[in-house]
This record gives sequence, C-alpha cells and structure tokens, in this order.
Amino acid sequence: MDSSRPLDALNNSRGKRVIVDLKNGWRFVGKLHAFDIHINTVLEEAEEYEPKNKTVITQVDEKTSEQVVLGDKELKRKLGTVFIRGDTITNISVQ
Amino acid sequence: MDSSRPLDALNNSRGKRVIVDLKNGWRFVGKLHAFDIHINTVLEEAEEYEPKNKTVITQVDEKTSEQVVLGDKELKRKLGTVFIRGDTITNISVQ
Amino acid sequence: MDSSRPLDALNNSRGKRVIVDLKNGWRFVGKLHAFDIHINTVLEEAEEYEPKNKTVITQVDEKTSEQVVLGDKELKRKLGTVFIRGDTITNISVQ
Amino acid sequence: MDSSRPLDALNNSRGKRVIVDLKNGWRFVGKLHAFDIHINTVLEEAEEYEPKNKTVITQVDEKTSEQVVLGDKELKRKLGTVFIRGDTITNISVQ
Amino acid sequence: MDSSRPLDALNNSRGKRVIVDLKNGWRFVGKLHAFDIHINTVLEEAEEYEPKNKTVITQVDEKTSEQVVLGDKELKRKLGTVFIRGDTITNISVQ
Amino acid sequence: MDSSRPLDALNNSRGKRVIVDLKNGWRFVGKLHAFDIHINTVLEEAEEYEPKNKTVITQVDEKTSEQVVLGDKELKRKLGTVFIRGDTITNISVQ
Amino acid sequence: MDSSRPLDALNNSRGKRVIVDLKNGWRFVGKLHAFDIHINTVLEEAEEYEPKNKTVITQVDEKTSEQVVLGDKELKRKLGTVFIRGDTITNISVQ
Repeated sequence: MDSSRPLDALNNSRGKRVIVDLKNGWRFVGKLHAFDIHINTVLEEAEEYEPKNKTVITQVDEKTSEQVVLGDKELKRKLGTVFIRGDTITNISVQ
Repeated sequence: MDSSRPLDALNNSRGKRVIVDLKNGWRFVGKLHAFDIHINTVLEEAEEYEPKNKTVITQVDEKTSEQVVLGDKELKRKLGTVFIRGDTITNISVQ
Repeated sequence: MDSSRPLDALNNSRGKRVIVDLKNGWRFVGKLHAFDIHINTVLEEAEEYEPKNKTVITQVDEKTSEQVVLGDKELKRKLGTVFIRGDTITNISVQ
Repeated sequence: MDSSRPLDALNNSRGKRVIVDLKNGWRFVGKLHAFDIHINTVLEEAEEYEPKNKTVITQVDEKTSEQVVLGDKELKRKLGTVFIRGDTITNISVQ
Repeated sequence: MDSSRPLDALNNSRGKRVIVDLKNGWRFVGKLHAFDIHINTVLEEAEEYEPKNKTVITQVDEKTSEQVVLGDKELKRKLGTVFIRGDTITNISVQ
Repeated sequence: MDSSRPLDALNNSRGKRVIVDLKNGWRFVGKLHAFDIHINTVLEEAEEYEPKNKTVITQVDEKTSEQVVLGDKELKRKLGTVFIRGDTITNISVQ
Repeated sequence: MDSSRPLDALNNSRGKRVIVDLKNGWRFVGKLHAFDIHINTVLEEAEEYEPKNKTVITQVDEKTSEQVVLGDKELKRKLGTVFIRGDTITNISVQ
C-alpha cells in the first residue's frame, strides 16, 4: 500500500488473503475480491471465525474478582464466496 | 462471482439459495430473488433461524468459570417470500 | 412477488396481511397499506406482539447451565392503523 | 387513512390524539400537531409514559426459571407541547 | 407553537427554558438559544441532570421479584452555555 | 455565544478550554482548536477522563437494593492534540 | 496542527505514529498513512490493543460494592498495514 487515499491503499490488497473484523466480534478471512466506497466487501475462499468470551476469576486477599477476556476466535464455517455489508466492518488487514 | 464490484458479485448469486446473517444473530436461508444498492434483499422459499446462546460452566482448580458460546441456530419459521431491510444484514453467502 | 427489485416485490404484498418484525423483537401484523423507499410502512387492522424471553436452566453432571431462548410472542395491543418508521424494521413477510 | 404513501396516511392523523412509541421503550401520547419527512413530530397536550420491566420467577420441578416481561407503562410527566426527534420513534398509532 | 412544521413549532420555544432529554437518559435544562435542521441545540444557563436507576425488590408468596425503575434525575453540573449534538436528543419540551 | 445558529455559538468557544462529553461516557477537556459541520472536533492540550460506575447497595426492611450510579470521572491520559469524530460527541460546554 | 479545519489538523499528523481509539474499546497504534472525509484511516506498522475490564470489589461497613474499571489495554496482534472504517473511530491522537 503506497497511495495517499484509504481506498487506494485497500485496493493494493486485492487478490491477497485479508482479515476482516466485524463490529460484533466475528471475523472473516479470505481473498479480497471486491469492495466499494461503502466498504461493502466480497471475499473468496472465506472462513468465518466466532468470538469466544471467557470469564477469568481471580482472588486477591479474600476478595473474588472477575475479569472478562476475549478468548481466541474459533473457526465456525468454511464459506465459498461471502458478501459483507460495509457498515458491519471495523477493520481490514492483510493476513 | 467474477466481477470486480461487490454488487456485481452478489448479482451472480441471484436464483441460488443463500444464507443471510443479520446483526441480531438471526439467519434467513432462501433463494435470492432481488436486492438493491442498500442491500434490501428479497428471498423466496425462505426459512428463518433463531440464535441460541449457551453458557458453558467449567471448573479449574477450585474456581468456577463461565464461557458464553453461541449454539447452533434452530429453525424457527418457514416463510414464503421475505423482504429483509438492508441495514440489518451482516453478510450473505451461497449455501 | 415476481419482479427483480426489492420494493417491487414488496409492492406485490399491498393489501395482504403481512408480518413486520422490528429490531427490538416486537412484531406488527396487519394489512400492508403503504410504504416508501425508507421502508416507512403503514399497516391497517394491526396487532402488536410483544417478545418474551425465557431462561431455561438445565443440569449436566453437577453443573448448572442456563440457556436464554426467545419464547413465543404474545398479543399486546389491537391497533387500528399504525405508522412504523422504516429504520426500526428487520423484515416483512406475507402472513 | 386512505392514501398510498405512508406520510399521507400519517397526515390523516393530524389533530387526533396519537400514541408515539420510542426505541427506548418510552411512550408519548398527545394531539398530533406537526411532523416532517424525518418523522420529527410535535405533540400538544402530551403525556409521557415510562416503561416498567418486571422479572417474573417461576419454578418447574426443582428448577427456578426467570422470565423478563415488560409491565404496563406508567404516566411519568404531563407536558404541554413536546418535540420528538424522528429517529427515536418506532411507531405512531391513533389512540 | 401554532405552525404546521416541527421546526417552526420548536422555534416558538426560543428564549424559553426547555427540557432536553437525551438517548442515554441524561437531561439538560436551559434557555433555548439556537438549533438547526439536525436539531443540534444550544442552551444557555444550562443544568445537567443524571439518571438514577433503582432496583425495587418485592416478594409475592415465597417468590422474590425484581423491578427496575428509573428514579428521579439528580442535578449533576451547572453549565453556562452547552452545545448538544442533535442525534443524541430524544425530545424537547418547554419547562 | 450570541448568534442564532448552533455552529456560530460553538464558534464563539474557539480558543477556550471546553469539555467534550462522548456517548460512551468518556470525556475530553482541552482548548477548542477546530470543528466542522459534522462536529468533528480538534482539541489542543487535551486531557482524557474515564467514567467510573459504582454500585451502591442499600437495605430497606430486610430487602437488599442495588443502585448503579456514575461516579466521578478520573484523569486517564494527558494528550497533546486530539481529533474527535463528531458522531461520538454528546455535548460540548466551556469549562 | 495549526489549521482551522479538523481534517487539516489531522493531516498534520500524516507520517507520525498515532493512537486510534475505537467505539468498542479496542485501540490501533501505527503510522498514519491515509484518511478521507469519512475518517476511513490506513495505518502502517500497526499494533492492535485489546481492552480489559476488571471488576474491583470493595467492602464498606458490611456492604459489598462492585466497581467496574477499564484496565490497561494489552497488545493483541502486530499487523502490517490496517484499514480502519471511519465510523468505528472515536478519536485519534499523536502518540
């Protein structure tokens, strides 16, 4: 990516495998086939990953404390081609 | 799908059975009949699937830990034709 | 519905009783009188249904597990004519 | 209401007492004085109703089950004239 | 307020003390100085009120039931002039 | 602030230290350097404050009642210049 | 940053390492390569930080009180170049 506009930079990732993170914590990984100005995005050979929340419980002195952490994402579905609506996307990076 | 714009790619799925995932976790499966630039979508012979959340409780050492996982989706209703408002859609993939 | 644009397809449901599901889980059922490009919708002889959440508690091995399920919707109000703002609508289907 | 566009239908309710339900569960009841294409709405002689959530606890076999239900709305404030921003509105019906 | 468009009606409240309720439950009270078509609003001699949630616990037969009620709002800050972004506003009424 | 349009009124605060409250409860305090019609805002010599929620537990008769209150905000970071996206802002007031 | 429009001010940070905070509490740190009027942003040599929530439990008299605090953010992933959709961004500051 070497251009000064965000969509030009995104265009340099066409044909590469990218990671698409969604607002709801889900993730798609696949080959970047197409996108438009709304960031509507089409991936090929896509995989869908599900977020896992974990509650870690620790104990300091005699007090119990809970800490919510986001665990690793788990492969949920293998999809062929997937159309992702742009307004659900948080960020896109090359894998 | 072989075109460089997302809606062209989506157009290649017309007449095929597609999976439409919504922001609230619900899912529609049906034959893709129509869509527009807002991704307003019409499915025929549609089925509606409800998300199920499960809380899995494990115990490590003497501490109890809860993990929220999204269970399988369950068939809720068989619909004929359904109009889905575009802004509720997360992603669309061929079944 | 036999046209290739979503609003044309929706237009074929005018005068029929339709189910309108909202983002907050509520549902309106009534005769489709009018809609516009924002999917602002007017139903006649409308009924309003309230969502019910239930928590089902099961026990596996000595562990208690909770599962939140969406129960059946319950008739809340009988309305004459209702105007529904389009951006609150998830999907519309013929009853 | 006898016209084919939603705002025309809404226009037929001018001067009548209407119920305006908001996305956050609150409700306004008053005489419909004015609205625009964003559904920004002005009511006169308005009353504001607050939603009440109740948790009903039942017991099946030896398991306790909680069910959240939306109780009746309660009159909170008597207002003269109120301006309601359109994007907070779910639906409007004649009282 | 005697005009048929919502913003004209709102204009009639200029210079009067108004109550501005926000989507997050907060409230501003002050003299209405200015607003625009987005309902961006400027109040003078403004006061900010914080919402208080209370959980009322009652007991019927031998079952405990919780009811969440919104308590009275409490004065949090006295501000001079405040600019409120229109899309955070639920409703505006004369005090 | 003495002009009849909200952005003119906001313009009168340029160069003064302002408090910018965000939808997520965070707060920025700094010198108002620039803003545009989307209320995208740039502050200089900015400080970031984190919201603190507290749960106050009281006991009436033999019933326990919880009340969630928003505690004082705490200084989290000292920033030089910060760009704040307009749609995250709730309100802006002179310090 | 010395210009009177927010995007000009942001432009002065091009090529510098910036902190980008998102609405969901996540944070990206990297070299500001590009942005547009929607604040779609491209960072190079980017790092992704995950928010950690902690529940601190204190005891006053014989009452237990919980306080939710946002702990330090933890490095989650090292990314090369990342495209961030503008509408997920809360604020951008120079590191």
